[in-house]
Amino acid sequence: MSGDEDIITAWFARQSKLSANDYSIGIGDDMAAIHFRGGDILVTTDMLIEGVHFDLQSASLHQVGYKAMAVSLSDCAAMATVPVGAVVAVALPKGYGQKELKELHGGINDAAVKYSCPLLGGDITKWKATGGLCINSTITSRGGGGAPVLRSQANSGDVICVTGQLGGSGLGRHLNFEPRVKEALRITGLAKLNAMMDISDGLSTDLSRMCKASGVGAIIEAAQIPISQAAQKREDPLDSALNEGEDFELLFSLSAAQCQKLQHLWSGPVEITQIGQMTKNAEIVLKKADGSSEPLRQGGWDHL
Amino acid sequence: MSGDEDIITAWFARQSKLSANDYSIGIGDDMAAIHFRGGDILVTTDMLIEGVHFDLQSASLHQVGYKAMAVSLSDCAAMATVPVGAVVAVALPKGYGQKELKELHGGINDAAVKYSCPLLGGDITKWKATGGLCINSTITSRGGGGAPVLRSQANSGDVICVTGQLGGSGLGRHLNFEPRVKEALRITGLAKLNAMMDISDGLSTDLSRMCKASGVGAIIEAAQIPISQAAQKREDPLDSALNEGEDFELLFSLSAAQCQKLQHLWSGPVEITQIGQMTKNAEIVLKKADGSSEPLRQGGWDHL
Repeated sequence: MSGDEDIITAWFARQSKLSANDYSIGIGDDMAAIHFRGGDILVTTDMLIEGVHFDLQSASLHQVGYKAMAVSLSDCAAMATVPVGAVVAVALPKGYGQKELKELHGGINDAAVKYSCPLLGGDITKWKATGGLCINSTITSRGGGGAPVLRSQANSGDVICVTGQLGGSGLGRHLNFEPRVKEALRITGLAKLNAMMDISDGLSTDLSRMCKASGVGAIIEAAQIPISQAAQKREDPLDSALNEGEDFELLFSLSAAQCQKLQHLWSGPVEITQIGQMTKNAEIVLKKADGSSEPLRQGGWDHL
Repeated sequence: MSGDEDIITAWFARQSKLSANDYSIGIGDDMAAIHFRGGDILVTTDMLIEGVHFDLQSASLHQVGYKAMAVSLSDCAAMATVPVGAVVAVALPKGYGQKELKELHGGINDAAVKYSCPLLGGDITKWKATGGLCINSTITSRGGGGAPVLRSQANSGDVICVTGQLGGSGLGRHLNFEPRVKEALRITGLAKLNAMMDISDGLSTDLSRMCKASGVGAIIEAAQIPISQAAQKREDPLDSALNEGEDFELLFSLSAAQCQKLQHLWSGPVEITQIGQMTKNAEIVLKKADGSSEPLRQGGWDHL
């Protein structure tokens, strides 16, 4: 069962009548692609709002600025593309001014420097009525050697992998995670991927999106899922790894032979873990440590 | 005296260390430019928020969606570039769902079709606490034959022109204005402009930005300013034409000879009016109908 967000996204995609020559990737993937001078320019936009994506009791404005950039950079990673520039718009709560803007800018700039993705412009506005901080980042990228990796080309029989560890992001990592831009480019330089996306709304929900887009199913081995130390502090660590979201790790699918090659050539520090396999059957199944199986519940974020 | 918004924008620009080879236009113009495969891709982002840019008592969601696109399309016009695609992100108030998203989409799509600038993707989120509707549009464009027209290259002695009529936009036009995308391309096809921008925050404020960026001053003839019929309903129509903002008309500067050529070749329906001249002296002067002069007060919008 898809969430409301997926239903409306699918509706938007159906309204869209893009020429595939001019726009090779449209609504529904991590980034859209615009054909320009024989190449593709890709674009992604992400809106973060107070009380949903951050809480100003626990997050600094510097962290909020960093996160806004990092979330969009993670979309660049999701397609193995190279970030080239960012524009950032903000709606400020009443009482905010230059001091707060400079703190936000500090975090934006940290990410911009670290990921070679300069801030090119933006827009500033301020609520007249009560309203929380809202920050929107739009990042443009270019292909990273190969074609951008879609989420829709996974094949039945593919091995499913993730980078890093999952779960517990809400305990702090969601504010300082490192988008896997370099890792995505290294991985696609070493092996041919069939599909990739980033895990923003939780493995359960995002894997289901990849499967739906690709017309396949999946079996995930619970015992193989790399559960983070932070997730161990949650009441149900496996549930956190599957559903908490904001991991911003990569989820990808490739043939067994390519996966073997990748694992052979890969050297850390970010781990790559095989967690299951794509199947012909449209179901997504979680195989538990005790050998029993159950349908994987999509317990991740639905923004509607 | 610059507003707070201009002060912080200048500060952001000073922090920015863009390579001019890779980014020919950075922070401070209507769009930024990214060099790609021997050409320039331009990008602009605009955030509209409830209670500031629209009021849901008087504006429909369809109008809000249209306006979000039109504001960014006006930035494309401001540099005489051709829109190629849009991404739109929204933060929805509590209680909003698919119905409201479809209404917003209707307005977005109207603008997308009218200006050949398809919606390529977006992001949806929803306030948990009280929060107004926020919509962010980011539009990508390409050069329209000539190089993008900057706001910073006006020369002393240039004639200053505007398209259309100014003032009274808050009485309705701000929700259904037509960004001057085609007009900008026609104008730059007929004459060589030195500087251009769109009037979003009021003629007084935006002209001052153009003068500051170009290192020139200006004399404006009050009697020449094309005051709209809507502005006539305001208590002080001239003040409305100078300061109300959200006109989204073009403000441009060119040599007297080029202006003569343009006026000779131009045929409506949108009028082009000469309103003054750029000067060496860094002041901006308003010459009134009675022959007296006064410094032009920057009474337009300051978003901070």
